[in-house]
Amino acid sequence: MISRLEESPLFRIACPRHIVFFGASNNFNRMGSIMLSSIQSLGFEGPIYPVHPKEETVRGLKAYRSVMDLPEVPDLSIIVLPTELVCDALEECGQKGIKHAIVVSGGFRELGPEGEVRQERLASIAKKYEIKVLGPNCLGVANPHHKFNPTPIELEGRPGFVGLASQSGSFITQMFNYLHLHGMGFSTAFSVGNEAILDLVDCLEYLGACPKTKVITLYIEGIRRGKDFMRVARDIVGRKPIVALYVGGSDTGKKASLSHTGALSGPDEIYDAVFKQCGIIRARTLVELFDFALALGTLPPPKGNRVAIQTHSGGPGATAADACGRAGLQLPDLMPRTVERLRAYLPHTASTSNPVDLTFSKNNREYFSGIPDVLLSDDQVDMLLIYMLSPVVFIRRFLREGGIGESELERLEDTAVKELTRMMLDLPKKYRKPVVGYTFRSLQEKMTRDLLEGGIPIYPDAERAAKALAAHVRYHQIKSEFHTRHVE
Amino acid sequence: MISRLEESPLFRIACPRHIVFFGASNNFNRMGSIMLSSIQSLGFEGPIYPVHPKEETVRGLKAYRSVMDLPEVPDLSIIVLPTELVCDALEECGQKGIKHAIVVSGGFRELGPEGEVRQERLASIAKKYEIKVLGPNCLGVANPHHKFNPTPIELEGRPGFVGLASQSGSFITQMFNYLHLHGMGFSTAFSVGNEAILDLVDCLEYLGACPKTKVITLYIEGIRRGKDFMRVARDIVGRKPIVALYVGGSDTGKKASLSHTGALSGPDEIYDAVFKQCGIIRARTLVELFDFALALGTLPPPKGNRVAIQTHSGGPGATAADACGRAGLQLPDLMPRTVERLRAYLPHTASTSNPVDLTFSKNNREYFSGIPDVLLSDDQVDMLLIYMLSPVVFIRRFLREGGIGESELERLEDTAVKELTRMMLDLPKKYRKPVVGYTFRSLQEKMTRDLLEGGIPIYPDAERAAKALAAHVRYHQIKSEFHTRHVE
Repeated sequence: MISRLEESPLFRIACPRHIVFFGASNNFNRMGSIMLSSIQSLGFEGPIYPVHPKEETVRGLKAYRSVMDLPEVPDLSIIVLPTELVCDALEECGQKGIKHAIVVSGGFRELGPEGEVRQERLASIAKKYEIKVLGPNCLGVANPHHKFNPTPIELEGRPGFVGLASQSGSFITQMFNYLHLHGMGFSTAFSVGNEAILDLVDCLEYLGACPKTKVITLYIEGIRRGKDFMRVARDIVGRKPIVALYVGGSDTGKKASLSHTGALSGPDEIYDAVFKQCGIIRARTLVELFDFALALGTLPPPKGNRVAIQTHSGGPGATAADACGRAGLQLPDLMPRTVERLRAYLPHTASTSNPVDLTFSKNNREYFSGIPDVLLSDDQVDMLLIYMLSPVVFIRRFLREGGIGESELERLEDTAVKELTRMMLDLPKKYRKPVVGYTFRSLQEKMTRDLLEGGIPIYPDAERAAKALAAHVRYHQIKSEFHTRHVE
Repeated sequence: MISRLEESPLFRIACPRHIVFFGASNNFNRMGSIMLSSIQSLGFEGPIYPVHPKEETVRGLKAYRSVMDLPEVPDLSIIVLPTELVCDALEECGQKGIKHAIVVSGGFRELGPEGEVRQERLASIAKKYEIKVLGPNCLGVANPHHKFNPTPIELEGRPGFVGLASQSGSFITQMFNYLHLHGMGFSTAFSVGNEAILDLVDCLEYLGACPKTKVITLYIEGIRRGKDFMRVARDIVGRKPIVALYVGGSDTGKKASLSHTGALSGPDEIYDAVFKQCGIIRARTLVELFDFALALGTLPPPKGNRVAIQTHSGGPGATAADACGRAGLQLPDLMPRTVERLRAYLPHTASTSNPVDLTFSKNNREYFSGIPDVLLSDDQVDMLLIYMLSPVVFIRRFLREGGIGESELERLEDTAVKELTRMMLDLPKKYRKPVVGYTFRSLQEKMTRDLLEGGIPIYPDAERAAKALAAHVRYHQIKSEFHTRHVE
């Protein structure tokens, strides 16, 4: 295992100081041009050297006829050329002394026997010159913390804590927007493609050592180095959670992934057993993958699996209770002292059993601070799940009814929401217990958005919140088991 | 069974011509005032008579000291008074000759023995005067087509095709925004509360006869008239799909629903069997309930369960294939003629097996019209599931690169998107086969929003799309079985 990021073969792929780029031109309607434009638009801070057979400049950068003409040896070569030109370009990179490459171009093993031969040639060139290659048939990497995004989609949102190693490039690029909308961001994300040289295990090892990565997510269609995968995963899991999505197990998933990267998938049960033995949390869908990552990357460790549910509406309370039950979480009875203290806050029609149902919420401060504070102080309660009908809906109506004009309304609403947010963000800090919200409204509404960015996960339904809490509990059980084994 | 809406005891509750309102005042910080304001803001077209002990006017409307003073006998009385005043108000309504009432106030059977006695008194008054009462402890009804929304939340979005009968009021009001964001709207939604007189079965019967309702959704915590429920449901299912969410079956769900409306829930297996016998599609979560409704309310009947998946990204294709497999759908091999025709559209790195994976999409017209047209023409293909990375992401970058200014850009982008939308909306009409999209981006983006409003369901992930398609297939199997039985 590596102890420092610098030891990883991927270090200068994820954090290059300078880049040579093959396949960009001044015609934007080409993959290479689009990818170079993404690098530029994120503001990559090192020099970029485009190689082009004819142009003097490419996208405003001085172009070179050959990699041999470059004024220095760049850390990384990015190759987005037509398939038949890839091997020659890599050969030249080797001659120049370049030690890292991302090969984006497809047309290799994923195409069958003919592509297989081509991929073998690529691998032998890489080995001859000791070039660490990511790909071919991949989108490479996105490292927002290094302002480095050579993928065809522009980065959205802030750098974050989610590491990803993926056998699908789309699950990097097409998640920029998704993660942003859900209050997350990538630390570093790798697309491994056909794994001619570097593979999923190398990425996993890198993310295990990466200080920006709080939780590792994996999208797997087939693992090639099983033993190494398990060794590396087991080493990481005691320190950092790993969540994996594997789709090759079902007949339909298998068929799809074979034609995708040519990975040979195995029976679902085998992967299930592998994940269990390594302490990897399994997600069944992409949505679960990142739902679990959000909880694992933001919440304090839970002491147990007992959840208090707070709601002002019976239906959302009952469905959350049902979802928690199905996810294996418990709904404890509240202690008598808690029930007594709650009485001060609740109308006579309310329920002080768990779920605590106010039936109608009149006082936002009590709802988002006073009542959750009482619930979190209960020793029977390990976690709080709170239903959030955005208070903005009512605040705005009240202000309008009071005759407040639209401009002033905006300001007063913001002030009210900021105060509620601040009060709610104090709760998990005060009690060191997980606090999670759920809502059926858009996550982009005021307050919900602020809470997400402040570190309280809000899920767009009770089911997803309950499953994420259950994954969080499971990981911390696994973690303590791993520690116990180490002590023995 | 009723054959016309007018025969339903709920007709003048959902479609009143005039209303008397108890419990609103000029203080907005009261439930009654908020509810009256919702009625006004949606533009209810009949007269509203507020009853108030002191005020001359309430929210700009002439107020009356007593219901006896009203100039006419209103169709409907809405009562939002403190618990202890409710029975007297209903008694007065009876004396006036009013035949329909919504009792919003809580404090009845849901509170235990004391409330039980109060509810019996309420029911006996209702029976004495033959008043059809919805509630108590409910939010009543929302009928957007009649511009009638007496609930505490203002209506959002357009009137729609989703009927709802719910044992939770929140699942009416707090779904206005949710349904709107997901491209749906209520036809009519009922909150039944404690069901002292009218119950879930009456609502089901109403929705079965309602011409605006294309699909019926039910939120159930416990059914009181089991036999009647089954009789009515079976009568409807041959004509109109019913989807039900039942949460009382799990231990945690049971506990929560008991304190909510005092409904006695039964073992999950019994409800499961009841649903199966009636041909009701069961949803496991609220999200599924409305996901299924979207498919059932918009898609043409499928001929079978064979899905073609179209994607330009391997990962989303593989996860969709996996999700379809788990949902019980089949991925047929495409016919040789289809594969041949596809070749003209696809790059050499693409896959012409199912999922059809373009690997990269350059031509939006081909992606949203040419290719799906070929796939839908295949006799092996009953339905099309298409991955949608919003084309706007690329169109905007291309236009910007071309030096187009921001204002012109908006217009050109709109023109391009409108054309693609129109082409795609033609597909299900041309082939009479279900076409469904999935995306990981916001459903509020251009094109996605237009497609949703034009009648092509787009789901925010493959799993949800696959489950909804499976529910759609299941319903049409059930429907044909019901027809066969009727013929026998």
